[in-house]
Amino acid sequence: MEKIYVSGHKVPDTDSICSAIAYAQFLKDSGQYDAQAIRLGEISRESQFVLDTLEVAAPPLVEALEAGTAIALVDHNERGQAIDGIEELDIRQVVDHHRIANFETKGPVFYRAEPVGCTATIVSKLYRERGLTPDETTAGLLTSAILSDTLYFRSPTTTQEDREALDYVSKLAGLNVDDYADRLFKAGTSLEGMSAQELISADAKEFNIDGKLARVAQVMTADLASVEPVLPELMEAMDEVRKETGAQTFVLMVTDIFQETSKVLVSGDYVAGLASAFESPLEGSSFMAPGLLSRKKQMIPKLTDTITGK
Amino acid sequence: MEKIYVSGHKVPDTDSICSAIAYAQFLKDSGQYDAQAIRLGEISRESQFVLDTLEVAAPPLVEALEAGTAIALVDHNERGQAIDGIEELDIRQVVDHHRIANFETKGPVFYRAEPVGCTATIVSKLYRERGLTPDETTAGLLTSAILSDTLYFRSPTTTQEDREALDYVSKLAGLNVDDYADRLFKAGTSLEGMSAQELISADAKEFNIDGKLARVAQVMTADLASVEPVLPELMEAMDEVRKETGAQTFVLMVTDIFQETSKVLVSGDYVAGLASAFESPLEGSSFMAPGLLSRKKQMIPKLTDTITGK
Repeated sequence: MEKIYVSGHKVPDTDSICSAIAYAQFLKDSGQYDAQAIRLGEISRESQFVLDTLEVAAPPLVEALEAGTAIALVDHNERGQAIDGIEELDIRQVVDHHRIANFETKGPVFYRAEPVGCTATIVSKLYRERGLTPDETTAGLLTSAILSDTLYFRSPTTTQEDREALDYVSKLAGLNVDDYADRLFKAGTSLEGMSAQELISADAKEFNIDGKLARVAQVMTADLASVEPVLPELMEAMDEVRKETGAQTFVLMVTDIFQETSKVLVSGDYVAGLASAFESPLEGSSFMAPGLLSRKKQMIPKLTDTITGK
Repeated sequence: MEKIYVSGHKVPDTDSICSAIAYAQFLKDSGQYDAQAIRLGEISRESQFVLDTLEVAAPPLVEALEAGTAIALVDHNERGQAIDGIEELDIRQVVDHHRIANFETKGPVFYRAEPVGCTATIVSKLYRERGLTPDETTAGLLTSAILSDTLYFRSPTTTQEDREALDYVSKLAGLNVDDYADRLFKAGTSLEGMSAQELISADAKEFNIDGKLARVAQVMTADLASVEPVLPELMEAMDEVRKETGAQTFVLMVTDIFQETSKVLVSGDYVAGLASAFESPLEGSSFMAPGLLSRKKQMIPKLTDTITGK
């Protein structure tokens, strides 16, 4: 069987790690490819909890692949979020749930995107459409990704399809969902011992919006108040990264998934416009945005409107 | 139910017309949208034969839609092939089998692309995945599109999935495939009474390759020799269109689907490079390319290599 690599996005979250491993398994189970999952960055605390609990090895960290190598992208499509040198690779497949932009192929591809809460939901559907059943470990990875990416259905990106997929895979995984979700989020949201530098880079993505480079990071926490003392340090670290990367703006969402609110810090341009887009009063270079949980579905559209002046 | 328009590409071929009607029906059958198929250009002779035979009305010709209108694209994604003003519309879904380029959405979408011979093959799969059965007329439209786009499996773009889909839908349509295909291609490839202007514009597509505008048209015929006398006229008409549109190059493929060969005419740049890419001796501004049947799978990759100098 032909060899293919399966990669999630840079600064991988739990969906990118788990869906890469699960989709590689699907490609093998369905007889399509001899597939190998890879990762483009450090394993988060939440992802490490999943790998430890399910006793799965982390995908190897890969920084570059030889030109012409076959690759499948999961959980991303934009060039800036893909492996360096993606232009020279042979993109065969994409399974994703994000907007499509800065993406191009030379020939026809298998592209499967759906506006659902998690890439793993689509991987679960692919298994069912083919009449295949994920093994217990794969089902556990899919369960973890759906819980993580939809914040156990708290995220506004959640759809009925995510609920159905979680129901299906969690049973196959033999997991008590409520208990497992509780342990997953506790493992993931502990900010203890993290530096300002770590907080702003743990889950950061770059977007090219109307020719402007925007960097948007998100930190999940169960204790928003604990971030207050390090605000000046965070702003300083963000200013520095912005200068290094040439980004016009650097937005950090500190999200309390239990209170369902985010504190938004902005370094660089568009701070006033963005606060106004969320109808929130500006406090220095930050504002509170009640109800803001999703970078993709809530922040990026408002940031796009702010930048393009719509 | 929410309203949505379903559109094929500009200068619609039989797949674009039939898949638009069939996918609109699928969106209704699956309870997703109150869908209405539209078309962006004249009905080809081949498509007219299908509509007449199956007693289906042509989709209305639409030149523009109000900003913000919901739309589903079938059989295309590139901006240049979509309805004018696509940037201002709300793209909800794409079902396609072409490369992805010059395409962007603001939010997550349903995107379903597969490297198969025909969009209708994917529409047939969607019906089956949902556990729905296309009605007899819809099955007839899907049959017609698969026959047309794969040249009844003669095109190198043909896959096993196209064969399975044709088997499924042609039975539902109650059509004798061999006989129907024969009538379809005879109706479609008659060049009788067509002017040079008609021949070069009947199935023409624009591509943006590495910043260069390339126009590639294709004419199918069962009698390649009959084109010889009008060659000078064709070249003149192509030169004119190239000047009007600012295209760097205008490539016309005159394809004999029974002899499985194409005569390629090139107006503008890259004529020598393209002949060399097909390893064919240049005769003036044209060359023969035995085995060349597919614009998408054979011509566009070679043209891309020629333009980018790879």
